[in-house]
Amino acid sequence: MVLRLSSSQPDFEQQFAAVLTMKRESAEDVSESVHSIVEAVKDKGDKALYDFTAKFDRFDVETYGLRFSENEIETAYNSLTSELLAALKKAADRIASFHQNQMPHSLDYTDDDGVRLGQQWRPVSSAGLYVPGGTANYPSSVLMNAMPAKVAGVENLVMVVPTPDGVVNPAVIAAAKLAGIHEIYRVGGAQAVAALAYGTETIPSVDKIVGPGNAFVAEAKRQVYGKVGIDAIAGPSEILVVADNTNDPRWIAADLLSQAEHDPVAQSILITDDPAFAQSVELAVQNHLRTLPRAQIASASWENYGVIIVVGDIDNSLPLVDALAPEHLELAIENPHEYREKVTHAGAIFVGRYTPEAIGDYVAGPNHVLPTARTARFSSGLSVYDFMKRTTFVECTPESLAAIGPAAITLAEEEGLQAHGLSVSIRLEDIDKQ
Amino acid sequence: MVLRLSSSQPDFEQQFAAVLTMKRESAEDVSESVHSIVEAVKDKGDKALYDFTAKFDRFDVETYGLRFSENEIETAYNSLTSELLAALKKAADRIASFHQNQMPHSLDYTDDDGVRLGQQWRPVSSAGLYVPGGTANYPSSVLMNAMPAKVAGVENLVMVVPTPDGVVNPAVIAAAKLAGIHEIYRVGGAQAVAALAYGTETIPSVDKIVGPGNAFVAEAKRQVYGKVGIDAIAGPSEILVVADNTNDPRWIAADLLSQAEHDPVAQSILITDDPAFAQSVELAVQNHLRTLPRAQIASASWENYGVIIVVGDIDNSLPLVDALAPEHLELAIENPHEYREKVTHAGAIFVGRYTPEAIGDYVAGPNHVLPTARTARFSSGLSVYDFMKRTTFVECTPESLAAIGPAAITLAEEEGLQAHGLSVSIRLEDIDKQ
Repeated sequence: MVLRLSSSQPDFEQQFAAVLTMKRESAEDVSESVHSIVEAVKDKGDKALYDFTAKFDRFDVETYGLRFSENEIETAYNSLTSELLAALKKAADRIASFHQNQMPHSLDYTDDDGVRLGQQWRPVSSAGLYVPGGTANYPSSVLMNAMPAKVAGVENLVMVVPTPDGVVNPAVIAAAKLAGIHEIYRVGGAQAVAALAYGTETIPSVDKIVGPGNAFVAEAKRQVYGKVGIDAIAGPSEILVVADNTNDPRWIAADLLSQAEHDPVAQSILITDDPAFAQSVELAVQNHLRTLPRAQIASASWENYGVIIVVGDIDNSLPLVDALAPEHLELAIENPHEYREKVTHAGAIFVGRYTPEAIGDYVAGPNHVLPTARTARFSSGLSVYDFMKRTTFVECTPESLAAIGPAAITLAEEEGLQAHGLSVSIRLEDIDKQ
Repeated sequence: MVLRLSSSQPDFEQQFAAVLTMKRESAEDVSESVHSIVEAVKDKGDKALYDFTAKFDRFDVETYGLRFSENEIETAYNSLTSELLAALKKAADRIASFHQNQMPHSLDYTDDDGVRLGQQWRPVSSAGLYVPGGTANYPSSVLMNAMPAKVAGVENLVMVVPTPDGVVNPAVIAAAKLAGIHEIYRVGGAQAVAALAYGTETIPSVDKIVGPGNAFVAEAKRQVYGKVGIDAIAGPSEILVVADNTNDPRWIAADLLSQAEHDPVAQSILITDDPAFAQSVELAVQNHLRTLPRAQIASASWENYGVIIVVGDIDNSLPLVDALAPEHLELAIENPHEYREKVTHAGAIFVGRYTPEAIGDYVAGPNHVLPTARTARFSSGLSVYDFMKRTTFVECTPESLAAIGPAAITLAEEEGLQAHGLSVSIRLEDIDKQ
């Protein structure tokens, strides 16, 4: 049964705190199995990939070939309906456009002391995109992970995707082609992550690995971190809808279910100021569930983790929103931008009554890879920044070194690092003589 | 003996590859000890901090008090010489100024489809700064970690520092005061990291933990990651100097030693186009070592890990630089900015003959917390971004939802996520009726 809270109930703070610390995932410890897989790939390269793929995916990738041929990619692409292809193109274009607007600017200026300072942004040279097989094999996810890398300017972008029993979703391959990926390998699991980190005879090593995956993939990413960069490891999806009673309850119910249908441990929360509206939404949820194909999953999520919070005043709900730090926040209220500007912690915000969260999953443009489990307190969604890095620079002239150098010498002496001091003083002495 | 390579020797590629994979650190596995310390702090709070501090720091912090009093902070601040205080202020001001220039801009625009899009940057609410005791107890490090947080707008900034035998460096406390930190706790090690992550009766939990530390501190940060954000875990320092033969070899030698003196496993590399100049630098290194207080450390680093690479042409050294992806890169050459712009992988660049790396350690302004061990291929130095996160937003009008919604429905259907599709189609139906 969905949990119903009211901000006026005496134990509200306690109940709300319990929502904040609700555990929805049981962490499976796969570190030893993953360690042995990673070591095997490091030692045996392609041979290990053949063996693991035969074992886990029941597929003879040695005979078939690890890499998708140009012909296979073309065939997959051409097998799509024109409607699906047009939708993927629309999504790819809009994602590219938003991420282009997100590109950071370099910095280069000379300050009052005469020191020239700046920072230059450069893309990582190579990145690997992990795409899961099975139920989470989504073309939208390919676009959301690949487009920021392309926009950032990553030159070498490769994709790995498991093909259990040899089966692959052509829409995933088509999305890769649309995103400009030409190098796709038929391998998944921890072995694919290890291949991307260390390289094999066939698969090149990359500098950064991104993309969702199961517990083995997540643990493999943790283990290769440091050798390569990785993205954040995401938990089950969440949505928080803040809605007043002038909404159509059927709309809001559909929005809550759009996250619930992802996963039995997904979480959907509604905050509203009207108990009667809350009840209408609950009824509408039950009503939608009667016809939705993924009703079983959505229902499990809603019954076990769904929460409805009735507050006295929508404006007073802001601290609850920031405490929940939701992955997705929908603001179906009056003056939603005023509220939006005050939000401190959220992955992405869907503003106003005509912006269902699902629009952001596919075609809005901002990334759908977002921080979950309250990590929006300190982290952000996937972006061009994840595929770039900054190099700062500084240039002193003899004059500006004379202006700021003495302070550096004083601090170096204090810290007992005399060679640091020497590298400045030896120049200042020569400058003095000039 | 320092390793001497020449790009013209037949086995150069092999030798250079060996430099790239040179191991300078032996990873000590402290995960179990750290796990038990973290659990003890979670369970017992302050009591665990008292016990661990008595055991590891030989200090009765229960009697003395975990938190530094305002009075103690004032006393430490006032004990500094006016010269040291002025140097710290100069550093704090210049670091603040650079990081202000680094602040990102929010985004808010409406695109051709009529969709309003943007992203807003917000600071993390709270951050904890770890400052090591013992030999790495540097006031410059306090400034470099604290100022970006302050500039980013972090409201609650706390510092932890171990005080072995009750001893603390007043310059470290003064630097904290200068950076606007008023909450400082006498605790270190894995127990301090655990306290910052989970909170105790006295120490508040924070959202992000930064700052250098030993193997225990690094492992504790790894273990609490996810509950809180952490910064990158840094390895021993490195410098790569690219210098032509018109430099004073004594200057370049001092620069190489300024990193070598940090740590016996630090690494200093010189790339030059003149074998005679290389020899002069080697002689100058030996000459400096005769008088430097930290000669033993610097000499161990230089003899074991120092490398001199003679290339045919400075311009051809760029691929070597990018392959080394150095923490610090010094360009003591003609037209250094031309070269600098072509660099893809480096933590920070020191441009021209009058910019010793040490100026960046203290007063230049850019951060001295930088990626080591070739991680500049995919990561960046500490910055205001480490203390901020982005929230993207999107707003559709009925018209713009009608423009982009159908593509979202097509993709949701393809992915078998019908509630996603429903949340869009249920709105489009009503829009059609209007």
